[in-house]
Amino acid sequence: MSVLILTERELRRLVPLNLAAIGAAEQAFRALGEGRAIQPPVLALEIAPRNAEVDIKTAYIDGLPQLAIKASSGFFDNPARGLPSLSGFMAVLDAETGRMAAILLDNGYLTDLRTAAAGALAARTLARPDARIAGVLGCGLQARLQIEALALVRPLERVLVWARDGVAARAYAAEMSGRLGILVESRDTAEAVVREAEIVVTTTPARAPIVQVEWLHPGLHLTAMGSDAYYKNEIAPAAVARADCFVCDVAVQSLALGELGPAVAAGAMPADTAPAELGVVLCGQVPGRGGDEAITLCDLTGTGAQDTAIAAYALARAREAGYGLSIGD
Amino acid sequence: MSVLILTERELRRLVPLNLAAIGAAEQAFRALGEGRAIQPPVLALEIAPRNAEVDIKTAYIDGLPQLAIKASSGFFDNPARGLPSLSGFMAVLDAETGRMAAILLDNGYLTDLRTAAAGALAARTLARPDARIAGVLGCGLQARLQIEALALVRPLERVLVWARDGVAARAYAAEMSGRLGILVESRDTAEAVVREAEIVVTTTPARAPIVQVEWLHPGLHLTAMGSDAYYKNEIAPAAVARADCFVCDVAVQSLALGELGPAVAAGAMPADTAPAELGVVLCGQVPGRGGDEAITLCDLTGTGAQDTAIAAYALARAREAGYGLSIGD
Repeated sequence: MSVLILTERELRRLVPLNLAAIGAAEQAFRALGEGRAIQPPVLALEIAPRNAEVDIKTAYIDGLPQLAIKASSGFFDNPARGLPSLSGFMAVLDAETGRMAAILLDNGYLTDLRTAAAGALAARTLARPDARIAGVLGCGLQARLQIEALALVRPLERVLVWARDGVAARAYAAEMSGRLGILVESRDTAEAVVREAEIVVTTTPARAPIVQVEWLHPGLHLTAMGSDAYYKNEIAPAAVARADCFVCDVAVQSLALGELGPAVAAGAMPADTAPAELGVVLCGQVPGRGGDEAITLCDLTGTGAQDTAIAAYALARAREAGYGLSIGD
Repeated sequence: MSVLILTERELRRLVPLNLAAIGAAEQAFRALGEGRAIQPPVLALEIAPRNAEVDIKTAYIDGLPQLAIKASSGFFDNPARGLPSLSGFMAVLDAETGRMAAILLDNGYLTDLRTAAAGALAARTLARPDARIAGVLGCGLQARLQIEALALVRPLERVLVWARDGVAARAYAAEMSGRLGILVESRDTAEAVVREAEIVVTTTPARAPIVQVEWLHPGLHLTAMGSDAYYKNEIAPAAVARADCFVCDVAVQSLALGELGPAVAAGAMPADTAPAELGVVLCGQVPGRGGDEAITLCDLTGTGAQDTAIAAYALARAREAGYGLSIGD
C-alpha cells in the first residue's frame, strides 16, 4: 500500500491546459448528465476572524478508478504577507477500496485548470461553431486560462478584454496576443466588449451586475464563471432572463452561489426555475443552442465531479510518466 | 514552503493514547463550549453502488496554529478483499495562511484515538470520581481503546464486557486483562454488565437499542459512542429520557445521527430538546453530574474540532521529534 505524492511543479508539467483537460471536464459533466455521479453539497468553512474560507468538494463518478476530495482555500489577508490568497490540494482515494492513492499538492493549480476547461466545454457545447471573436471581462488568472482554453475549441481570430484596471487590461492584451498569436485588444468599457464579441467569458468577483440586457445581441454566447458566492453577481437579472437558453453546471449552486440567485431575487426569473444543467445538454437530453441567432448563457460555479475527473486524469498521467514520490505505510 | 508527510507508523509512535491525547480532546471541547470553534456540518458522500461512505469533517479553533480537514472512509466490501473497511487521513492547513502544512497518512488511526480520548473526557467530566468498575458493550477496536483511555482517568479495578459474539468477548477479556493488569471478565448479557458497572461505554453498531431503562441504577455513567448514523441506536428511548443529565458532543448531530434522534422519534424526549453539549458542561456553563446518585449519559458522534486539535498536537510532536518527510513545492 503506498501513496503517490505529486507537487505543483510536477502537476503543471503533467497536466497542461489542453484538449485532454477539456476531455476530463466533459467526462465529469457527462457523468452528471447521465446520473452516474454522486455529488454531495459543498462543505464551506467560513473563518471570519481570519478573513478566510475553505471549500471542500468531492464526487464519486461511476467508471472512474479514483475519487477526489478537493479543498480550495481563500485567505484574503495573505497578499499583505506576500502570499497568494488562493490555494488548495486534492486527496485521491481509490474508488473501490477507499484507500488513499495520491495527494496532489497542486496549490490550486488543478482547480484553475479544470475551471478553464469547463468554460471551454460550455462554449463548445453552446456557442456558435463559427464564433471567432471572444471577449473577456476581468484580466486575472482565469481571464487568461479561459481564453487559452477557448482557443482550443473555437477558431478565435480576435480577443477583446475589459477590466476595471485599464493598465492591467492593456498588459493582458499585450501578453495574451503574444501567447495566442492573434490580435488581443483592450476596450474602455465592458459594453464595447460584449457588443462586439460572439463569445464572452465573465471572470470578475463583481458584487453588482456588469453585463446589461441591452448589450446582448443575436448569436452571443456568455459564460459567467466569476460568481461563486451568494453576494457575487456579474450578469444583470434581466440579461439572465433574456437568454434563450440558460444552462448551469449545478442548478442548486447556480441558485445559491451563481447568477440564478440574483435573477430570482429580482423577480426576473420564477422562483421555481429549474435550469438545464450542462451535463444533460451535453448528453443531448435537453436542447442547447436553438439556432445561429439564439443567445446562450452558461453559469459555472464549480463541481466536485470536475475535481474527481481531473484528479483521476492527473494520477493516470503521473503513473504513465513515472512522476511523483511514493510513500509506503 | 514545504509540506510534512507523516505515515501511520510514525503517528502511532508520536501520538499514543495518553493524557496528552485526552488533553487535545479537552482543548477541542473547551473551544466548542467557549464559542472559539467554527465547525460546519459534516460532508457525507454516500456511495451506495460501492457499499461505501466517506465523511469529511473540519473545524477552525481560535488559538490553534493549524486546522485539519479529516476524511474517514468506510468501504464495507473491503474485508472480502482482505482490507480493513475503515480508513482515513487528515490534511493540516496553517490557520493563518491556509497553506498546506502537513498530510497525516494515518489510515484512520488518529480518528480512533481522538474518539477514545473523547470518551475518557466524557467520563472524567460526568462519571463519579470514585467509579472503579467499568463495563463495555461490544469488543472491537473502540471497546479496547475506550477502556484503555478510561483507565487513564478513573481508578479502574475491574472491567466487564459483553458482545454478541461470546468467543470474541472472552478473547477481549483475556487480552485486556493482560494489557491493563486488572480483572477483565466477560458477561453473558449486556444487562449483567450495565447493572454491575459504574461506568458503561457502548461501542456497537446496533440498529435496535441494547441498553434498557430498567438496567439503569443510581450513580451510573453511560457513554454511547457507537451510533453515528440515523439508523443506529444503542440506548432505549426511555433510558435516554431517564438520565438525570443528558449531554452530547454536538446537539444537531445527536439528533440526526446519535441517541437523541430515536428518543425524540419515540416521543420519549420533546422534539425541541436542547441537550447540553460536553463543551459547555466542561466549561462549567451548565451543570453536569448532580451528585453521587445521579445517572449521567453522554452521546458522542464525533466532531471536526477533535480532529483539528489532535492534528495540531500530532504536528507539534512531529516537529519536536524531527519526524516526517518534508516535500517542497
